Amino acid sequence: MSRSMVKQDFPVSNIRHFLEPGPVVLVSSKWQQQANIMTMGWHMVMSFSPSLLACVIDAGNYSHALVRNSGECVINIPSATLVDKVVGIGNCSGSEVDKFQAFELTADKASKVGAPLINECHASFECRLHDDAMIKQYNLFIFEVVKAHVTASADEESSLHYRGMGEFMLSGRSIDRASLFTSSMLV
Amino acid sequence: MSRSMVKQDFPVSNIRHFLEPGPVVLVSSKWQQQANIMTMGWHMVMSFSPSLLACVIDAGNYSHALVRNSGECVINIPSATLVDKVVGIGNCSGSEVDKFQAFELTADKASKVGAPLINECHASFECRLHDDAMIKQYNLFIFEVVKAHVTASADEESSLHYRGMGEFMLSGRSIDRASLFTSSMLV
Repeated sequence: MSRSMVKQDFPVSNIRHFLEPGPVVLVSSKWQQQANIMTMGWHMVMSFSPSLLACVIDAGNYSHALVRNSGECVINIPSATLVDKVVGIGNCSGSEVDKFQAFELTADKASKVGAPLINECHASFECRLHDDAMIKQYNLFIFEVVKAHVTASADEESSLHYRGMGEFMLSGRSIDRASLFTSSMLV
Repeated sequence: MSRSMVKQDFPVSNIRHFLEPGPVVLVSSKWQQQANIMTMGWHMVMSFSPSLLACVIDAGNYSHALVRNSGECVINIPSATLVDKVVGIGNCSGSEVDKFQAFELTADKASKVGAPLINECHASFECRLHDDAMIKQYNLFIFEVVKAHVTASADEESSLHYRGMGEFMLSGRSIDRASLFTSSMLV
């Protein structure tokens, strides 16, 4: 049973808190009334301000054209409780399946992009395509995160980290080493 | 006390097993007799074959010039037991500190690049610069992994995943969902 997630504004310059640990994400997109979701593990933070991230969306994915043509997407972070949906979404194509319907996920309206937020995820980052220069050669998209939404209890959610071959690493406990940092390094 | 790590060859096309979960890595480099180590969290897998990965090495880092001028580096994965060294390495500059000496780490000879492997890490990936087109604008390096070394017990090591502000998430247990994958999707 999925939970409905109420999210709050979150500073776009600090999305590293959720993305830098490397979770599997769900990318939602929409173009010309066609919405889709894909499962993605190949992404990285690139810059705090502007808030840039890079990711690979293979041209074989139905989402590739939706994201490229609309110049937008939403990067959503699913809790580990959604693992079976995450796998299912990754193993079928938006050309054949309405994934919001098939996986019983709720499309919430975003504030700055046309692509929908996935309500059941605990963090959703609205993205605009910032640089398309490497798409043709590497399927590499560079996005700017223009709005971030995070639930109040997001830090308590477990995340999924893919290893290939059907194996997921779950996030573990956190440790604090702030006392070892010089203040200028503490970002 | 650091352990000496005996590593074996590992298929370069499968480094996602270790990198896709998003661990903090130590980048070792060498140019004109100057070796250095930096702590890095912004990286992603880009392709299986060739085995490509992308990462951001800010121009303010001493390693930036070493990696760019040599066109090489080694991406090493430290176990969570090395967290205090990982923080220390990230909080000082190779322009002032010999980090191998200061952090009591052992430089092993690589087989295909001039940069050293860090013996105390459980996985080391020798990298050659594959594409420098995005370095100037984004400090974005695209590497090909040309040789991979992994200890026999690497899957039992805990990894570090950075959240910013001195906080690290530790890797947790693994779960197997291979039974939910179609065979063609199981890579």
